[in-house]
Amino acid sequence: MEFTVREIAAFLKGEVVGNQDITINNVSKIEEGKPGTLTFLANPKYNAFIYETKADVVLVNRSFKPEKPVAATLIKVQNAYEALASLMDLYVQSLPKKKGIEIPSYISANSKHDEEVYIGAFAYIDEGVVLGKNVQIYPHVWIGRGSVIGDNTVIFAGAKIYPETKIGKNCIIHAGAVIGSDGFGFAPQENGEYKKLQQIGNVIVEDNVEIGANTTIDCATMGATIVRHGVKIDNLVQVAHNVEIKENTVIAAQTGIAGSSTVGSGCVLGGQVGVAGHIKIGNNVTFGAKTGVKNNVKDNSVMMGEWAMDARNFRRVYAVYKNLPELYHDFYTLKRNIDSRS
Amino acid sequence: MEFTVREIAAFLKGEVVGNQDITINNVSKIEEGKPGTLTFLANPKYNAFIYETKADVVLVNRSFKPEKPVAATLIKVQNAYEALASLMDLYVQSLPKKKGIEIPSYISANSKHDEEVYIGAFAYIDEGVVLGKNVQIYPHVWIGRGSVIGDNTVIFAGAKIYPETKIGKNCIIHAGAVIGSDGFGFAPQENGEYKKLQQIGNVIVEDNVEIGANTTIDCATMGATIVRHGVKIDNLVQVAHNVEIKENTVIAAQTGIAGSSTVGSGCVLGGQVGVAGHIKIGNNVTFGAKTGVKNNVKDNSVMMGEWAMDARNFRRVYAVYKNLPELYHDFYTLKRNIDSRS
Amino acid sequence: MEFTVREIAAFLKGEVVGNQDITINNVSKIEEGKPGTLTFLANPKYNAFIYETKADVVLVNRSFKPEKPVAATLIKVQNAYEALASLMDLYVQSLPKKKGIEIPSYISANSKHDEEVYIGAFAYIDEGVVLGKNVQIYPHVWIGRGSVIGDNTVIFAGAKIYPETKIGKNCIIHAGAVIGSDGFGFAPQENGEYKKLQQIGNVIVEDNVEIGANTTIDCATMGATIVRHGVKIDNLVQVAHNVEIKENTVIAAQTGIAGSSTVGSGCVLGGQVGVAGHIKIGNNVTFGAKTGVKNNVKDNSVMMGEWAMDARNFRRVYAVYKNLPELYHDFYTLKRNIDSRS
Repeated sequence: MEFTVREIAAFLKGEVVGNQDITINNVSKIEEGKPGTLTFLANPKYNAFIYETKADVVLVNRSFKPEKPVAATLIKVQNAYEALASLMDLYVQSLPKKKGIEIPSYISANSKHDEEVYIGAFAYIDEGVVLGKNVQIYPHVWIGRGSVIGDNTVIFAGAKIYPETKIGKNCIIHAGAVIGSDGFGFAPQENGEYKKLQQIGNVIVEDNVEIGANTTIDCATMGATIVRHGVKIDNLVQVAHNVEIKENTVIAAQTGIAGSSTVGSGCVLGGQVGVAGHIKIGNNVTFGAKTGVKNNVKDNSVMMGEWAMDARNFRRVYAVYKNLPELYHDFYTLKRNIDSRS
Repeated sequence: MEFTVREIAAFLKGEVVGNQDITINNVSKIEEGKPGTLTFLANPKYNAFIYETKADVVLVNRSFKPEKPVAATLIKVQNAYEALASLMDLYVQSLPKKKGIEIPSYISANSKHDEEVYIGAFAYIDEGVVLGKNVQIYPHVWIGRGSVIGDNTVIFAGAKIYPETKIGKNCIIHAGAVIGSDGFGFAPQENGEYKKLQQIGNVIVEDNVEIGANTTIDCATMGATIVRHGVKIDNLVQVAHNVEIKENTVIAAQTGIAGSSTVGSGCVLGGQVGVAGHIKIGNNVTFGAKTGVKNNVKDNSVMMGEWAMDARNFRRVYAVYKNLPELYHDFYTLKRNIDSRS
Repeated sequence: MEFTVREIAAFLKGEVVGNQDITINNVSKIEEGKPGTLTFLANPKYNAFIYETKADVVLVNRSFKPEKPVAATLIKVQNAYEALASLMDLYVQSLPKKKGIEIPSYISANSKHDEEVYIGAFAYIDEGVVLGKNVQIYPHVWIGRGSVIGDNTVIFAGAKIYPETKIGKNCIIHAGAVIGSDGFGFAPQENGEYKKLQQIGNVIVEDNVEIGANTTIDCATMGATIVRHGVKIDNLVQVAHNVEIKENTVIAAQTGIAGSSTVGSGCVLGGQVGVAGHIKIGNNVTFGAKTGVKNNVKDNSVMMGEWAMDARNFRRVYAVYKNLPELYHDFYTLKRNIDSRS
């Protein structure tokens, strides 16, 4: 990409202080600014960098008043952070977009797709699959029998979609994600072996969902594993059979949710959290990284710890825990003194 | 699929109470029952749902006696849960089964396969590979030089099998699993760099093993990493070089087993468990989710905790731990009282 | 492979005690030694096995003096362990090496590659990609627009490289690894939804790096996520956006490093470690398995625990923790006694 300051300011409805004809071709962080790039200053903690940055252009809040001369051209906007996000959207939209059907790919005669799709080389579209408008299927994606992919959804290279999966509109599925693999269900036999319980349900992913690289979401034993509208899931997350994750919940990397549990809406799960099976988690719950959740959790809770506790309580417990040697010493010293007196 | 109640009852040797000519085309949970589906009632906790379910047909134990009229047709069988599992088997067998060799695929002239195989488009079968009878190799699977896949084994899309891997009969390998990647072995050098120790062993997977999506099993440095008969491994599990997992052990998602450790037979490892290297775990051991195992473990142990403890002991410790602030308060109150008296 | 003892001894500049004309075709561990194989004895703990091993040939240190007759032929070398590592290198070099371009593969006309490359069937090389000398791209690898792969780097089957990634020389990327997927960045909206913050940075991997199977490394929001020279990363590891991992650091399986954190050089991270975002970790730091790191860490630290502590301190705390029920009992017994007296 290449934009002039004039073009960017027009797009952002911003005011230019400095040279309007400079051309920039990338963005950078203010502390790592390079010539030819645009950066931004939103957090006052970083103010000092604006006098030193080598970026040619800085987005600033209209309220920003320099205390020293600034070498870079400034573009003043209402909210520098949001303006940057808009510019990054613009940048991504300016990138070349994959279109059409590459050869060789495997598209079952018995599948349907809109004219406006990208199907990359070596993609595999099985019988009965339906791809919506503007869908992008990158190379090495496998879409099993009867799956449906909604408009504008992008599935990156090598993601695997088992049969009968339903994926909504405006979703992003990252490389290597697996959706619809068998739930982990086995019946113990008298001889110590396990017999597979067939997993005949599916996965339903609603609209505006993002699913990270190499994340796995198992199909339901019966019925559906469900990921609701607006959920964002990071890399290497495990979602087991018959789980339901409600609207606008965010799940960080390497977290696992065991079978038949429900996670409410508006929750935030840190990295490496583990949720046991058959648990109900309310709405707007926050779990710190590595929390282990073995019981139901009420709405609006904030939880931490190997066995999830209320976070304030956890911090109190932890404050004593980390000084246990001192407590131990003080107690047995006192005890010895008392014992020696009696 | 479409079956009549008459057909299902005949298959299950069950007794019909109600309309024999109803057709069902799916199964559902009793609390979510839908018209056109069959459900089951095995656990008395769910009895109340049978009077409300919208499923057309309910499998019940012969011993079940309704307390009110039931709208659904009943099929009475010896064990409703097992009958359901059999029906799910029947259902899965009724699904269209992939057969034959799709084009384009890459099959080395120097490999062998039975006539009764499925080799999906874009699958890659390298030199010296041998595929048994009824093997199913889904699209994007890579099978490296000299690997052997036993009869009836299914390898789902995009799984990667490194050279010289031996996989037994009746196994299921899910999408994205990687078997035989290099063990993590490096020798530190004087200059701070690490030199790779070549990993020249392989992986042996015996019969009736299931391996979850995106799970990784490294080859041995020398000799073999071994997964014994009947082992079931969930998604995103790590099995390092030279590990041996014995018969009928079950490992839940995101667990990791470090190099050269041995896990006995009949064990159950919860999710996100970590087993250190060079550890020996006995038979019939159970680890709760997130357990950290740093020492050898005896047969029949039940263990929990960040540093694995006997579970009963862990619960006792935890009961004190979670109330540490109270203990702390009580102790220092007492101490102050005593100190002030002396 | 097949080598005679004479050939091996000449290669290692070792001294033979026994039959020089024996042929070996594999290596084995001394306790599992099989006819036709070579083994080694480096650790005196294993001395007893040399009198029983069925391996035909044993590499021993020059200083080794048998106490009983040894059936196997000995090759005496300066350092048996290093000699073995050299032999394993020799063995791997003797294996058939993939060369040339297999059909069908997808190679953009607008990409460049040296003549000496391997590009496997179903590999996908997008526009602007540059592959160095002796690069090996296995089947099902996807290399996005503008990525550069340095000389002698090997990318195993199904790894996915997003656009604009830079990978250095002599790297090994294992099967299923994903490099350059979007960082996990979303801005909360007033209606509870999250808006994607476009991720326009990339990933830079320097020389001599190894990246394990199904590991994921996200691109930077802006700028670069950086993996420095000589870093070794195991399987199923998560490296988030804008992380920097410095020279010769080693990271075991299932560890996760959250956004914008920096890990120093010469560090060792055990398995299932979690590092929070925006953390700075010094050089030569060691983290035990499952450590949770929520604060900056100084050079040369050794840390353990759910909330990382100095390891010696952790062990002291843990020694009290595991006996908490006793402390509890002793305290409340004492308290009752005192209370009853007053």
